[in-house]
Amino acid sequence: MKPMKEKNSHCIDDVPYKHYDWARVVGQNCENIVGYVPVPVGIAGPIPIDGVEYPIPMATTEGALLASTHRGARAISMCGGCHSVVLAEGMTRAPVVGVPTLAEAGALAKFVKEQFPLIKAAFESTTRFGKLLELKPCVVGRKVFLRFRAFTGDAMGMNMVTKGVDKALSVIQEHFPKMEVLALSGNYCTDKKPSAINWIEGRGKSVVCEATVTADVVERVLKTSVDRLVQLNIDKNYIGSAMAGSLGGFNAQAANVVAAVFLATGQDPAQVVESSTCLTSMTKTETGDLIISVTMPSIEVGTVGGGTGLQAQHAMLEMIGCAGANQAQPGANSQLLSRVVAAGVLSAELSLMSGLVAGHLLSAHMKLNRKQH
Amino acid sequence: MKPMKEKNSHCIDDVPYKHYDWARVVGQNCENIVGYVPVPVGIAGPIPIDGVEYPIPMATTEGALLASTHRGARAISMCGGCHSVVLAEGMTRAPVVGVPTLAEAGALAKFVKEQFPLIKAAFESTTRFGKLLELKPCVVGRKVFLRFRAFTGDAMGMNMVTKGVDKALSVIQEHFPKMEVLALSGNYCTDKKPSAINWIEGRGKSVVCEATVTADVVERVLKTSVDRLVQLNIDKNYIGSAMAGSLGGFNAQAANVVAAVFLATGQDPAQVVESSTCLTSMTKTETGDLIISVTMPSIEVGTVGGGTGLQAQHAMLEMIGCAGANQAQPGANSQLLSRVVAAGVLSAELSLMSGLVAGHLLSAHMKLNRKQH
Amino acid sequence: MKPMKEKNSHCIDDVPYKHYDWARVVGQNCENIVGYVPVPVGIAGPIPIDGVEYPIPMATTEGALLASTHRGARAISMCGGCHSVVLAEGMTRAPVVGVPTLAEAGALAKFVKEQFPLIKAAFESTTRFGKLLELKPCVVGRKVFLRFRAFTGDAMGMNMVTKGVDKALSVIQEHFPKMEVLALSGNYCTDKKPSAINWIEGRGKSVVCEATVTADVVERVLKTSVDRLVQLNIDKNYIGSAMAGSLGGFNAQAANVVAAVFLATGQDPAQVVESSTCLTSMTKTETGDLIISVTMPSIEVGTVGGGTGLQAQHAMLEMIGCAGANQAQPGANSQLLSRVVAAGVLSAELSLMSGLVAGHLLSAHMKLNRKQH
Amino acid sequence: MKPMKEKNSHCIDDVPYKHYDWARVVGQNCENIVGYVPVPVGIAGPIPIDGVEYPIPMATTEGALLASTHRGARAISMCGGCHSVVLAEGMTRAPVVGVPTLAEAGALAKFVKEQFPLIKAAFESTTRFGKLLELKPCVVGRKVFLRFRAFTGDAMGMNMVTKGVDKALSVIQEHFPKMEVLALSGNYCTDKKPSAINWIEGRGKSVVCEATVTADVVERVLKTSVDRLVQLNIDKNYIGSAMAGSLGGFNAQAANVVAAVFLATGQDPAQVVESSTCLTSMTKTETGDLIISVTMPSIEVGTVGGGTGLQAQHAMLEMIGCAGANQAQPGANSQLLSRVVAAGVLSAELSLMSGLVAGHLLSAHMKLNRKQH
Repeated sequence: MKPMKEKNSHCIDDVPYKHYDWARVVGQNCENIVGYVPVPVGIAGPIPIDGVEYPIPMATTEGALLASTHRGARAISMCGGCHSVVLAEGMTRAPVVGVPTLAEAGALAKFVKEQFPLIKAAFESTTRFGKLLELKPCVVGRKVFLRFRAFTGDAMGMNMVTKGVDKALSVIQEHFPKMEVLALSGNYCTDKKPSAINWIEGRGKSVVCEATVTADVVERVLKTSVDRLVQLNIDKNYIGSAMAGSLGGFNAQAANVVAAVFLATGQDPAQVVESSTCLTSMTKTETGDLIISVTMPSIEVGTVGGGTGLQAQHAMLEMIGCAGANQAQPGANSQLLSRVVAAGVLSAELSLMSGLVAGHLLSAHMKLNRKQH
Repeated sequence: MKPMKEKNSHCIDDVPYKHYDWARVVGQNCENIVGYVPVPVGIAGPIPIDGVEYPIPMATTEGALLASTHRGARAISMCGGCHSVVLAEGMTRAPVVGVPTLAEAGALAKFVKEQFPLIKAAFESTTRFGKLLELKPCVVGRKVFLRFRAFTGDAMGMNMVTKGVDKALSVIQEHFPKMEVLALSGNYCTDKKPSAINWIEGRGKSVVCEATVTADVVERVLKTSVDRLVQLNIDKNYIGSAMAGSLGGFNAQAANVVAAVFLATGQDPAQVVESSTCLTSMTKTETGDLIISVTMPSIEVGTVGGGTGLQAQHAMLEMIGCAGANQAQPGANSQLLSRVVAAGVLSAELSLMSGLVAGHLLSAHMKLNRKQH
Repeated sequence: MKPMKEKNSHCIDDVPYKHYDWARVVGQNCENIVGYVPVPVGIAGPIPIDGVEYPIPMATTEGALLASTHRGARAISMCGGCHSVVLAEGMTRAPVVGVPTLAEAGALAKFVKEQFPLIKAAFESTTRFGKLLELKPCVVGRKVFLRFRAFTGDAMGMNMVTKGVDKALSVIQEHFPKMEVLALSGNYCTDKKPSAINWIEGRGKSVVCEATVTADVVERVLKTSVDRLVQLNIDKNYIGSAMAGSLGGFNAQAANVVAAVFLATGQDPAQVVESSTCLTSMTKTETGDLIISVTMPSIEVGTVGGGTGLQAQHAMLEMIGCAGANQAQPGANSQLLSRVVAAGVLSAELSLMSGLVAGHLLSAHMKLNRKQH
Repeated sequence: MKPMKEKNSHCIDDVPYKHYDWARVVGQNCENIVGYVPVPVGIAGPIPIDGVEYPIPMATTEGALLASTHRGARAISMCGGCHSVVLAEGMTRAPVVGVPTLAEAGALAKFVKEQFPLIKAAFESTTRFGKLLELKPCVVGRKVFLRFRAFTGDAMGMNMVTKGVDKALSVIQEHFPKMEVLALSGNYCTDKKPSAINWIEGRGKSVVCEATVTADVVERVLKTSVDRLVQLNIDKNYIGSAMAGSLGGFNAQAANVVAAVFLATGQDPAQVVESSTCLTSMTKTETGDLIISVTMPSIEVGTVGGGTGLQAQHAMLEMIGCAGANQAQPGANSQLLSRVVAAGVLSAELSLMSGLVAGHLLSAHMKLNRKQH
């Protein structure tokens, strides 16, 4: 076998590595490093969210995405902005354990419900911010999956929860000495995989964001009509997705915005998988205007840890006003970030759906994307 | 409302923008640009795939991911590498159209099956490389979703297919003059949303990749046993995911690798959603060794277009040996990239599963990730 | 352990067994027989389907179901009846086979596509009516699932297909001598289990049925308005089901009718699982009337075999006019039965949705169902 | 249009109606009655469940089903029977309501969590047995789905819960006077439709049942080996179902038994849809024996109401020893019925899987089913 290195080691020269503070990265964010990949970043908006204006930073190489999101944000801004609610929050981790009998599995499931305070105390002994909110058991024969859900302050929280779970398991084990921890993650969490449990139970922040866009703005700015938007939303985002067998994909392009904001702000791009699940609804008001909303039950974001400490990513969080841990109100920064994500998705949904109705999907992409071919 | 700009315009200074060839980006890959976000990139492997060594370039800010993937690649390399098959390929786009009666909807569904050559000719008149492979209709009342699937050479192909679909629809319309194109995408495609249709029908490249790892290497390098790996794969990747109501998420961390390779090579990170669906299987051979495989039906990649032309991303493709369009064998470059993605996933699955069995998930992440807290 | 028989053998006296032709049943439809369970049967409708009136026979113990379906059928009849299309048909069976290498698995998947005529000939050598329509392979490591889909005349067809598959496999094995048949059914069929593959690919008959109901009839007979029906259909059948993580359950009560008609006509009630998947759509026409449709991709019915030969069940098929095998046009009888099922579902959807809007769900059920409590 | 009645009114003569106590049925269980359909009923087992023997009454027209279930029950009985746990129970109903703003939707979701005791009191004021256990809200824009889950004694409980929900809503409305009840069922329940929410949250009884079958019995009675059973369970019930995109269908034939026991005991056959979701697991013990379990999270059964009061169906419940309401321990009868269902499924899974491994699926069905062709 011809060794790989000789073939193409020269290309490495095209990968930038200078002018970068590697001290922050090495041993924390990456290994076997050869440099960095620059991803262009732009700002859509600003968009008023619950009365305050925020920018939507997006890092992407997909032409037209930023312009489209910006157009949607502008239309929404012209009508007073959007409103949001964070319905619930909590990062999850679900170890799988084994016990010697089905009866003991049943007893374990009962125990973790009845002795929740005991387990909560053990979990919280490992963390300053983490608060155990819920423990959902799932028995399969002699195996038990234990889905822990915890408030994790401004961190996305996977590591915090994993640490708390580890401790909680050791306390449970005192009462079930024959219990064996098979793995700290049994996929019932579920992390970075499409699954109904996150759609139904939530993971990270569960956010709904909506705006009312006047018929006038729909026509002048978005070049379409409320009726056509509402109808296409039914045909595409409800029926089309239903026929495709989608779980949580009842939207036009939520993932585009989630991925772009995640990259811009140092989030984990693998978590786009579940963070982008979204149902987009559109309704016509009695006065003929459009209400558009996005329901996103599992936006997994943090403003400390992971890639959020890197200079450019941190700058983007600062621009939003949510960098680092919120000392006054732990969790408020990551909540704000989740609302910016949702507002960005709302904007992009509005814009793309308008474009689809008007039939200029193709032309926009062609114009922006195809120069190099 | 206090204007956003005054509040935090200073942070922009921390976003790098110098030493970058913006000419390539402006008007193609991004708008409203303020600079770029650097994402650290490293190389896992090399790993022999079907007898040839390839690097696995990964851009990530998640500590331990590269080291873990590298460890898996090394174990596989020590046992002769991995094998892969590309079972099928084809990018899809599914417009939704309306007709005046149910009978006409039925007739349209029949027509596109019977007159496939006619539609294929129209589609292919718009493209040098594209070949229409299949057209699957789905009738819902008086609406018809038409899922076009086409070979798109070395491009990921969304734009190519959209263009071909546009032309094909105009030919269909000659036979169904009352047909109205409601939208060029009716979510039956399905792009960037979790859906069963991609899992079952495939989208992009459908790849299976496998390796045999000797019991000796499992023990010495991965610090566990074949039996424990096989059992955990059942408990976590089959049963845990089944109980979580997963569609296509029968793996440990496929999305981590898919996202990292996508970022490193200029792919669309929003397509991680469906490109990361994967079933990981593990079996013990009669001689006591481990066979591990990953089945990934919808890896959406290209080596031309999108972000692949940017300098650093292009360099990564060159390092693999799959940059640009393959003149001799159109499609071979993007196929190779899909096989590298699958081999990377295979490596990371092997390594993480071993770590979970051995119980060092927590310690690895803690050591690498938590310094800054 | 106290033997069961002594405890409660007396109850057997309450199970009827006289006045029944057991010769038809023994050794064919049931074993360990102690008698029969009578299920009350009634007739909803008639309803005009594509211009001809048909009754909807329903066997049920759920009070109000027949009355409700009948009311819907009457409203539809007053507006000229319903229209239907059978878009596709074919019973499926998917064995799972194993081969020694991944390469051979890939080769096998390729072989069954390229040598389809050979396999078709083998399949059809075992049956007078069966026609192999499609063979969809699915490779997972060294295992291959082969989903055979065949036209089966007027039989539901599971046995016919299983027999053909058995023969087809023996022919494939000649070319892949190391192939091992692991099981004649590998769950990729999928029979009697909720799965996306039937929803997307169809199984049995794929039927769409629709009706236009005038605003006047909606108001006078159904006591509601078109606007309210259309809106509730969105809120409940699209959004509610989407949020519940449904695959194919975008309807109000399709399963009620499917189960009742299946019981009345001797179908397999376990196949209600997939036969009842249905998307109900409602739209307002420009003239203010209601278009309602049901899309049902996997209605599994037959008019020969199974329970269809039993006297009462056969009488119900005769009443519809679809008993036994259609000599002139094989398959026409089972197609008709599938259209009657769909028309029944259409009627019941219309009626229940109207009742829900009007708020009399509770009262209807209470009045009819609760006497005995 | 030729009137239907003239064509085929004679067939009605073949539908039995004599010797039946119609007084119990009319106005309660069916309307437009023309007679009854007899479904042959037999007894599989008995099988010891948690130390007591029970029969498995099954009404079916599918040949071989009873014999197969009986064989499985016999193998399990020879090894001491099976064990079961009822992990949770509760019937659900989820109305959908509308409020004027997103903020109010968020407030409503918060209110029902914080004021649960108030709502519980209202709910329980309508029922002697019902106990409200949980209220899970789901906000989508300005709509809220409220999934009530209640203990319902020995009744399946849909009507009991609907009544309690109606009352609870009127109390909620006092605090949210602008709230509009859009429908008493918003499909988030979910009743009679495949959906992840029942699989994950449970509905009716959540039961796990398991047995240890010795290697000797596997070989002598079931004619196969433990290793082959365990492997086929992986290939078919885990991987095959995963590839088919199944939600809750990780079993071989659970629906067959559920449908047959439901018919025999007067349950609602439309609820087979979700009551048959099941994951079958098989493991080899250290001593070489087989542990088989079935995990069934949503078995919807009752021993009062619906069809349970009809003579033959009631007799079957009496034979089991669970007819009517359990005065001493409300709910114990319906719990017992759910355990018998699970034990029947366990038996049938064991038997069919053994038959598939041994390759006699075809022959058994052919011999029993095909006489009339």
